[in-house]
Amino acid sequence: MTRVALLAAASLLLTAQAPAPTPATTITDPGSVLANAPADDWRPVDIENIVVFETTRGRMVLELAPAFAPMHIKAIRQFVAEGRFDGGAITRVQDNYVVQWAARPRPADAPALPIPLPPLPAEYEMPAQGFVFTRLEFADPYAEAGFIDGWPAGRDPRTKTVWLAHCYGMVGVGREAPPDVGDGTELYAVIGHAPRHLDRNLAVVGRIIEGLDAHASLPRGTAALGVYAKEAERTPITRATLGTNLADPPRFEVMDTASASFARYKAARANRSGFFVRPAGGLDLCNVQVPVRRATAAQQPR
Amino acid sequence: MTRVALLAAASLLLTAQAPAPTPATTITDPGSVLANAPADDWRPVDIENIVVFETTRGRMVLELAPAFAPMHIKAIRQFVAEGRFDGGAITRVQDNYVVQWAARPRPADAPALPIPLPPLPAEYEMPAQGFVFTRLEFADPYAEAGFIDGWPAGRDPRTKTVWLAHCYGMVGVGREAPPDVGDGTELYAVIGHAPRHLDRNLAVVGRIIEGLDAHASLPRGTAALGVYAKEAERTPITRATLGTNLADPPRFEVMDTASASFARYKAARANRSGFFVRPAGGLDLCNVQVPVRRATAAQQPR
Repeated sequence: MTRVALLAAASLLLTAQAPAPTPATTITDPGSVLANAPADDWRPVDIENIVVFETTRGRMVLELAPAFAPMHIKAIRQFVAEGRFDGGAITRVQDNYVVQWAARPRPADAPALPIPLPPLPAEYEMPAQGFVFTRLEFADPYAEAGFIDGWPAGRDPRTKTVWLAHCYGMVGVGREAPPDVGDGTELYAVIGHAPRHLDRNLAVVGRIIEGLDAHASLPRGTAALGVYAKEAERTPITRATLGTNLADPPRFEVMDTASASFARYKAARANRSGFFVRPAGGLDLCNVQVPVRRATAAQQPR
Repeated sequence: MTRVALLAAASLLLTAQAPAPTPATTITDPGSVLANAPADDWRPVDIENIVVFETTRGRMVLELAPAFAPMHIKAIRQFVAEGRFDGGAITRVQDNYVVQWAARPRPADAPALPIPLPPLPAEYEMPAQGFVFTRLEFADPYAEAGFIDGWPAGRDPRTKTVWLAHCYGMVGVGREAPPDVGDGTELYAVIGHAPRHLDRNLAVVGRIIEGLDAHASLPRGTAALGVYAKEAERTPITRATLGTNLADPPRFEVMDTASASFARYKAARANRSGFFVRPAGGLDLCNVQVPVRRATAAQQPR
């Protein structure tokens, strides 16, 4: 007998299409909540915010969060549009930490960029004003934990700031020691337990919504910090493309984290039954991955 | 320029030997705390509690925690001694969740086991009495969070129980739906964000203290729950051996989680400087991996 009943984590991407809604009964499992969530409780992922990285391992789809690091994201879009990531590589995979990738180095004798980029500001947190923050009902060791527009986030009432949290799959911009803030040519995605101590210390620009699994399973680098010791160990990036430049861009939906469905989803995750003899009664910010799914044709904007 | 300064996570295993202690100054980084920890602040890993799983990807060293699931661990030791895991396989790898492996199925016509095992009790949590619990100073969404004898743990003052927490690398026993409690022939290790909702719902028996990285980077299974769809996708376990049956068993040390060094380590993790412009000021249970290192010859019991 193969014991596989150890329950599934909420996948970052729910590849199965939701079945037709059934009459609401006592919903006690997260899957039922997702299946019964009305269309209005999902928000489409804006094609403007999609970047597709194609590598020799498959492709990673990045959703950008321009409300949180607008200048970094402007720089990333420009680098992608200029083809700077084409011929780049995954340069680092550190176990229980990050996958990191880099644009192709710019030759010293390359012509000037068409739109020179100003030095980037330290977009590590943002003034809270104007952000709708749905607070998680449970204690958090770092800050007020919650969600903003489909993103895991932190809030500090003292500094009156909000920021994106370093949960599994979230993407940030690598940098050197301060005052360097990174330039957007090196990105990392979290592939381990949430390194929340990085929150407010790096510019978080979005998350991988498809294809992280094929890259989280890359061999770990053997040099310090998981860097690949040899060029040959790197995974090449064959091409990076803005969603707006794709002929047939992938369409996704993210659950609206201010919706009743997401409230039910959190409650279901915190109070699971069936397999569970002792429901947790609590939930930590990064143990509730915000549901993301492929949009069906019917759900696409007309 | 390659930006690799994004800081390192505390590795589960610190492969480098600690340098000679230097005079204590203002210790502000976790590495310095480790380098300066006196020998008394480490506890040796008992060879009795070691199981080595050799697979075609390398080997995984499991440290058992018999105080928490003694009957499950008795069963696991017996299965290993009988060679039941030799010829077993890694049957499941689910992204951001678990690696799971299984003993070789026992033929129906096999002779009776030399020591028949009674049905196992549900060793999901234990009476708190007698356990020394060093509480983590920061809020936790699930329970009282802390450490017991080198292990991440939870405590509930209401039920007066303690349990091992499902942090990265921790190992539990797979089971079917209740009242099944598993029999110890299927084990899983956490390879993603801590699925703490599993705490108190499964028997946690220890953690992988070496070799998890080579197995956390296995391809994810494509069937439901990350199960490998085909036999050929599985990673064979060539042999499993009890530490006491190894000619030259690996020697490890775990930081004493009740020690002053560990208190300093937690404080250093919560208040990092240098690269960090905004120290976290907090720490979550599974974001402070208990330091484990290879013991030098001098540190081995004489």
